[in-house]
Amino acid sequence: MGVSVDEAPESAPRRRLDRELPLGVFDSGLGGLTVVREIAAALPDERLLYLGDTARVPYGARSASTVIRYAQACARALVSRRVKALVVACNTVSAVALEVLRAELDLPVIGVIEPGARAAVAASRTLRIGVLGTAGTIASGAYPRAVISVSTRAEVHAHAAPLLVPLVEEGWTEGDVPRLAVQRYLEPLARAGCDVVVLGCTHYPILRTIIETEARARFEHPVAVVDSAHATAAELATMLTERKLRRTGASGASGANGTGDIELLVTDRPRAFQEMTARFLGGPPRDVQVIDL
Amino acid sequence: MGVSVDEAPESAPRRRLDRELPLGVFDSGLGGLTVVREIAAALPDERLLYLGDTARVPYGARSASTVIRYAQACARALVSRRVKALVVACNTVSAVALEVLRAELDLPVIGVIEPGARAAVAASRTLRIGVLGTAGTIASGAYPRAVISVSTRAEVHAHAAPLLVPLVEEGWTEGDVPRLAVQRYLEPLARAGCDVVVLGCTHYPILRTIIETEARARFEHPVAVVDSAHATAAELATMLTERKLRRTGASGASGANGTGDIELLVTDRPRAFQEMTARFLGGPPRDVQVIDL
Repeated sequence: MGVSVDEAPESAPRRRLDRELPLGVFDSGLGGLTVVREIAAALPDERLLYLGDTARVPYGARSASTVIRYAQACARALVSRRVKALVVACNTVSAVALEVLRAELDLPVIGVIEPGARAAVAASRTLRIGVLGTAGTIASGAYPRAVISVSTRAEVHAHAAPLLVPLVEEGWTEGDVPRLAVQRYLEPLARAGCDVVVLGCTHYPILRTIIETEARARFEHPVAVVDSAHATAAELATMLTERKLRRTGASGASGANGTGDIELLVTDRPRAFQEMTARFLGGPPRDVQVIDL
Repeated sequence: MGVSVDEAPESAPRRRLDRELPLGVFDSGLGGLTVVREIAAALPDERLLYLGDTARVPYGARSASTVIRYAQACARALVSRRVKALVVACNTVSAVALEVLRAELDLPVIGVIEPGARAAVAASRTLRIGVLGTAGTIASGAYPRAVISVSTRAEVHAHAAPLLVPLVEEGWTEGDVPRLAVQRYLEPLARAGCDVVVLGCTHYPILRTIIETEARARFEHPVAVVDSAHATAAELATMLTERKLRRTGASGASGANGTGDIELLVTDRPRAFQEMTARFLGGPPRDVQVIDL
């Protein structure tokens, strides 16, 4: 049995959480693996249980009520397998369902949008912040809300870039097609004088080099590309430490590359997912288990 | 009451079907509207009831068992609303679920692949036939099977083109990005010496001009582009006439453009669907009703 923490009433979770338990991470599909990669790098002693809802991917073009329903099913599946905290590694779900999940669940829930917004404000000099995301994330207005809550002087230019996810999933991450698509999506951000581009979808870090290169060539100001996955892993580490939920190295089974103890669940097409794990996590393809929601 | 037909035992449906009933048409989302457009043009007196499963679109990357389950739900929803025949206006569903639906349902079921395959063989001189489709359609091997059943001498070169659906849905149907993507997808067909390109996904007719232009510029032989939607509408007309299920003009309420009497159902995001109806059907946006499956 691990050490349980509920001695600090103001910050403690409402039920006893065991620091030996894994962190639950979920996404509509593959993209959340970029968050897993960052968490494993920042917190190499933690165990991770990942769920990709590949039967219902993509969430990006679905209505808010549908996304909330799917997110509840994913969260319940992870909580029933016992996790100490939940990371919503999906911008679309973070945008529309985070408050519902927090109200419903007796454990800490972290999304990717608030950390991304804080990192964006910190990185910007002009406070004109560009965001690219799925149709659902952008339509929700979640990034402008999150940025404004950090700095009321900031100006957010958020635009949907629906082709970037299929480009990543097709493996077209170099060459003319992704370059021209990225150019077209960056245009309104360049016109608005932004100096930050937030990668508002967990697939986009795979296109980071192209986005960075094209933004540098086109933007008036020196530009910073903010990866919400990276910012989320950093905030998760702080939260776990504060709540005395952080697992220490002694019992750690993590590999040398920091992506050792990761259990992967999907709701459909495990073989295709398995092949993609190499692209997202590096190393050889991982074992993947199918569950029904 | 309309006229019922069960006097011809060898070709008649197993239960009494009323020729006044609408034709049921379904797809995973929007794409099937290209089939609706062709049916409305070929059969202007028919009433159409369309279901787009927009809550679970796209089917193209899902496993066969998931697609079958979704297709059964769509088919049951239409049959419970009373239709005289069912058109599976989705290549992915036609590829993996047609036989299951035919075995399960007491009414004629037509898919888009067999008509497309017959039209492709008829249009080809070299009998080297190229097919573009979603990952699911291509992985199923349904086009090669259907073509070989028409001509054992034919050679089928079927390739997945997963970016074309998101391009159409993004409205990027002109310019460099779709042109370069189409070029890349046509390359293996050009190398194989094909003289036919089958549009093996109901979204692709929207990109027909680009596909035709690029194929003509690159293929060794004069090239024919085969639209499965068009071929399906023609076979549907023949089937309805043969089974005495065809509705006659007297009671028709169809509009002058032949897309008058169409009822549209979706499972999510009616507003977005409504906006797209103009792109697929022409004319003003249509009324759309949401149902739960």
